[in-house]
Amino acid sequence: MSPQDDPTAVLHELLEGLARFGREGTGVTRLAYSDAWCEAQRWLAERARGLGLAATTDAAGNLFFHDPAVVPGAGAPPVLLVGSHLDTVVSGGRYDGACGVVAGLLAAAALRGHGALSAAGFVTCEEEGSRFPSPFMGARSLLGQVEAGELDAVRDGNGVSWRAALDAVRTRGCAALLAPGPRPFPPLFRPARMLELHIEQGPVLEAEGLALGIVTHIAGFRRLRVRLTGEARHAGATPMRLRRDALAAAAEIALAVEAHARALGEPAVATAGFARAEPGLYNVIAGACELGLEVRHVEPGRPAAMAAEVEQLARGVAERRGVALEIVEVSGQDPTTFAAPLVAAAESLAKERGLRFRTMASGAGHDAMVFAHAGVPALVVFVPSRGGISHAPGEYTLPEQLAPGLAFAIELARRVSEEPA
Amino acid sequence: MSPQDDPTAVLHELLEGLARFGREGTGVTRLAYSDAWCEAQRWLAERARGLGLAATTDAAGNLFFHDPAVVPGAGAPPVLLVGSHLDTVVSGGRYDGACGVVAGLLAAAALRGHGALSAAGFVTCEEEGSRFPSPFMGARSLLGQVEAGELDAVRDGNGVSWRAALDAVRTRGCAALLAPGPRPFPPLFRPARMLELHIEQGPVLEAEGLALGIVTHIAGFRRLRVRLTGEARHAGATPMRLRRDALAAAAEIALAVEAHARALGEPAVATAGFARAEPGLYNVIAGACELGLEVRHVEPGRPAAMAAEVEQLARGVAERRGVALEIVEVSGQDPTTFAAPLVAAAESLAKERGLRFRTMASGAGHDAMVFAHAGVPALVVFVPSRGGISHAPGEYTLPEQLAPGLAFAIELARRVSEEPA
Repeated sequence: MSPQDDPTAVLHELLEGLARFGREGTGVTRLAYSDAWCEAQRWLAERARGLGLAATTDAAGNLFFHDPAVVPGAGAPPVLLVGSHLDTVVSGGRYDGACGVVAGLLAAAALRGHGALSAAGFVTCEEEGSRFPSPFMGARSLLGQVEAGELDAVRDGNGVSWRAALDAVRTRGCAALLAPGPRPFPPLFRPARMLELHIEQGPVLEAEGLALGIVTHIAGFRRLRVRLTGEARHAGATPMRLRRDALAAAAEIALAVEAHARALGEPAVATAGFARAEPGLYNVIAGACELGLEVRHVEPGRPAAMAAEVEQLARGVAERRGVALEIVEVSGQDPTTFAAPLVAAAESLAKERGLRFRTMASGAGHDAMVFAHAGVPALVVFVPSRGGISHAPGEYTLPEQLAPGLAFAIELARRVSEEPA
Repeated sequence: MSPQDDPTAVLHELLEGLARFGREGTGVTRLAYSDAWCEAQRWLAERARGLGLAATTDAAGNLFFHDPAVVPGAGAPPVLLVGSHLDTVVSGGRYDGACGVVAGLLAAAALRGHGALSAAGFVTCEEEGSRFPSPFMGARSLLGQVEAGELDAVRDGNGVSWRAALDAVRTRGCAALLAPGPRPFPPLFRPARMLELHIEQGPVLEAEGLALGIVTHIAGFRRLRVRLTGEARHAGATPMRLRRDALAAAAEIALAVEAHARALGEPAVATAGFARAEPGLYNVIAGACELGLEVRHVEPGRPAAMAAEVEQLARGVAERRGVALEIVEVSGQDPTTFAAPLVAAAESLAKERGLRFRTMASGAGHDAMVFAHAGVPALVVFVPSRGGISHAPGEYTLPEQLAPGLAFAIELARRVSEEPA
């Protein structure tokens, strides 16, 4: 079987094959540098070689599928990178990451020897943040952004450092030697442009009956931890008018934040993900409550502005209820704008092919975001997610939705590779 | 020191003494049948004997302080019981229960030999439900309401049965032998009337600058566990209009329930004590949420009606948000109305003494509730709780608030004991 003959059949065979590594029940758990991850990587490298490509691993465990004529390293020519990540969340699905990884591999095979820019498939070692509390370890290491200190500082839930995890997989051939000095990951390839095919992880394409989403932006976000402190009192003996109920304050803030995002309109979103009342009993008014809030928006400056607006709303509620409020920004990321020429190329191609598509923002982060922030023109293309389900065993995209997405990605890569760097 | 000389000084000395048993930091933990409970009981019995009273323990570990001329058992004459409970919650305070226990002991000492009805102090073994998941074990056993099967069925968090706990304290003299047959606790005394002095556990008396609360009713309650099931989706990738957010539904229900109780007006109260979102992360819309609701009202039929109204409100919110709802009544208790002649006697006495008082409902349950439901004319009298704090180390009542309460309780007991059964 050759990808030129039937890339869709190969796509399914590869997705099926990858899902074997880390399978548990109906889901997939393939954490970075785990046994399943290592086996999947080796299996993919073998498949790439079978398609006439070279498979090269860097020191972080990122994997590249490329024309054997292109020699990776300091003197390598600029390339078009097409790919995604291989790790999953715990009890995740078969498509998140894997779909783009397979598209990258097949694009590199289909375009070997073509174009002004050589197309290489890539697999980032880590994207989900599910094992190590450090996001986008793969894309950042691939781009040479990681410093040596981080290898020791970043540890998983069992205290295993990034360095130790790498040492373990290196013995199995799943990572190359670290470079000495402060920059352990010198880039093997110089990405001139970057493409990523991904499942939407949301319900919009399915709801609108579309085949493709051309992602113009990735939303930035702010996460806020709000601690409300009222008075824990007997729920029977304390009249309504004398209460300082921390959970009621949290509920009012959660609804105010929801209403605020609705009033702003799309693409603003805001979510209260948890409200942990203390002591959390039927017969005691909550004396304290931890409320988790997240706001996202795709326009520059808007996530920070929304966080400030949410804080204002929360302070108003807390003050009115006589409840003390502390608010901490836990994490944040500014919005990403993808390269206009790549968006335009994708729109033209979709129109030519008669594909029903829309431009859209992505609420979720992707590897391409890191490339874009590093100045590499990048683009994400979405295929539909059934029911918007993702990061769960029920993650699914119909074969007849994947096939045009794959063909589109390969053809888009062909066009993008025709322009020199 | 004799109680006739200075009952207030003895009250403080006894409260101070009791607080030693189970002290931890600034709080008190004296769970039913624990070592601290047993030591406190023995110490109290010793103090009662020093005041010229007999101290008798029944088979459940309830303790009575009575005129030695009154012989407990099947042939005992009817008595006026004055008292409360000796157990506390975990990290509780020094006044809840203890205050009424000491008042009962001192009333029995002060009234020994007086009246048509002999006054006996009593200490129920258990009221809080903090060790065993069975409420009012003390009052129910004292009234002969407990059947033998319950001794084996009721177990604490470590799996220790009520029977085994009793066996252990019996060897230390803190419980008498169980009666054979289906009724292990034949009453030692026949209560003709019952009085209980208690801290308010709420902020009303303090807020209104009053010395006493004469409790006319105890609120009944219903506890509802609401399970909301929406869709756990990516918080970034799911537009506001496509969400089925279980935590937002819970928040809206919590606020609707709060508003409903406010609209009903006092003495209605309603509380959302917890809202446990799943998965409970910043970046995932809550797919499910468990919400704990409690409603209370003092009028017959109103707790059940409020529960039905709350269910209606919750169903409306869930339906509007496309979230599934299951609702379970976890527990409930109907309201209690205390005996009008006792309320009238207390009001007359308070007016005669020039005490600032009010009649009020109790939101919290008390031992007296069990007596009232068993047909024994009963009454609870409240002294203020600083800041409404209770079931916490900060529980406090000023000495100058306790003293008139104690004197009032003893004098009320004197009057009530003058009428024969």
